[in-house]
Amino acid sequence: MQKTYSYPAKVYLNGEILDAADARISVFDRGFIFGDGIYEVMARIRGRFFYREAHMERLRTCLEKIDISLDVSSLETEILTLLSASGLEEADCLLYIQVTRGVAPRQHSYPAGIQPTVMMYAWPKTLPDINHTPVAVVLQKDFRWSRCDIKMTSLLGNVMANEFAKSHNCYETVFERDGIITEASHSNVFFVKNDVVHTHPANHLILDGITRQVVLELCKSLSIEVQLQGIPASQILEMDEAFLTGTSTQITPISTVDGKTVYPESMGPVTRRLQEAFLELKFR
Amino acid sequence: MQKTYSYPAKVYLNGEILDAADARISVFDRGFIFGDGIYEVMARIRGRFFYREAHMERLRTCLEKIDISLDVSSLETEILTLLSASGLEEADCLLYIQVTRGVAPRQHSYPAGIQPTVMMYAWPKTLPDINHTPVAVVLQKDFRWSRCDIKMTSLLGNVMANEFAKSHNCYETVFERDGIITEASHSNVFFVKNDVVHTHPANHLILDGITRQVVLELCKSLSIEVQLQGIPASQILEMDEAFLTGTSTQITPISTVDGKTVYPESMGPVTRRLQEAFLELKFR
Repeated sequence: MQKTYSYPAKVYLNGEILDAADARISVFDRGFIFGDGIYEVMARIRGRFFYREAHMERLRTCLEKIDISLDVSSLETEILTLLSASGLEEADCLLYIQVTRGVAPRQHSYPAGIQPTVMMYAWPKTLPDINHTPVAVVLQKDFRWSRCDIKMTSLLGNVMANEFAKSHNCYETVFERDGIITEASHSNVFFVKNDVVHTHPANHLILDGITRQVVLELCKSLSIEVQLQGIPASQILEMDEAFLTGTSTQITPISTVDGKTVYPESMGPVTRRLQEAFLELKFR
Repeated sequence: MQKTYSYPAKVYLNGEILDAADARISVFDRGFIFGDGIYEVMARIRGRFFYREAHMERLRTCLEKIDISLDVSSLETEILTLLSASGLEEADCLLYIQVTRGVAPRQHSYPAGIQPTVMMYAWPKTLPDINHTPVAVVLQKDFRWSRCDIKMTSLLGNVMANEFAKSHNCYETVFERDGIITEASHSNVFFVKNDVVHTHPANHLILDGITRQVVLELCKSLSIEVQLQGIPASQILEMDEAFLTGTSTQITPISTVDGKTVYPESMGPVTRRLQEAFLELKFR
């Protein structure tokens, strides 16, 4: 379960390419003082970023939601420069982008006229074609804020929830709010019952994941019925299948919830159909 | 309403005293990536930190709540060094302390065995003896997480709420959750009705402010009845008086809520009694 993490070769910071050890920001960066920033993660597969436009559009709308003014299209050439400096022109990789409001003396409200901080890095990563190995998840009451639609860097709640999963030897923590399953600490969650796919509607209680959107498109093209409706936590064990979605999680089957088996084999038939269609999308 | 903010002369960062412009941290500091940190603010008045032990104890318990291991007593001499380097040995000042989990490659769950980042700075500030000028506040639904008892640096929710206040020409945003007033974006809130003081109980929905605690002690010593009970938002205009509390806010009377007058004069009699008793405490 426990993975090893390491620093990337290079970091892009405000127009400069730096060694990871030299990439430093002011302690007065509002990303450090207030968690006042937005982030994005994209996967590059066979030479192209998977759903790049959707990721960049989400970055743009999230920045807009918290009034950080940045022309995200200006990042496109910077990303290429970073990949080249990182020796990843050809490699499959993941790209992390973080934009904060910038550097200013500490005050809660937004300071005027400051330059946002842009930090990016990429690291080689080949995602599995299909995630065959199902994961265990644990349930927790959703104690996070109610603007989960904003992909912000004020992530302590998600961090605590992910630690909760780790301490239970689980891959993820799945949240329930007022008895209804919303999403997981860094992925979305889907259920299948009688060949109908259920997931929470994309409102302020979940992050509308790009992979979530892709899966919903795939359901349409495969004529799989979808209900955009959160499943009551009390009904999880009645579900036929369950899976998580996310940029690096892709589509990952859930085997157990709170130690109780949801699906006994590696994955259910609907999860498998979606995984196969997803694989085709990636490699088309 | 709009104040001017500036950088402090010196910053303490992990054992070093630096000019503010030179105080830089790694972009991989979890304070920057995840808002994974705790902070504290203390006021020094006439040569001593006001309720220092209570502030340091809250810092300790908040760090403990998120499993950051730091001996906060080790900060005591570092604080003196910082004050001396900042030319504030004798001055009234405010001290900001931030402790993050430290620097590690990005992963949500807590990395093991890393050194916390400690950053502190102080700036000259003489708080008014008594805050005579009442403030306007605006109401907003509490959209923050439900662990408001943790004084964390994942503050985007509070930042947005404070910006909401500023955009309404108000000093503060007061939150209501499920119809009940909890606290404000960076202060606690009290109401007075028929000589009884009401404030939300110190549970997971509010930060148990040190000034809040001091005011509750003062009520006891002044034989003012207290009800630890959140006031329904619908009853605010029936209240006789209202005030905010906080380290730099001290005790500040509220004149209007959402533009409607709560108390027409500069402050009500109970607010005044508490302010006078608070002044005595500060200068005793």
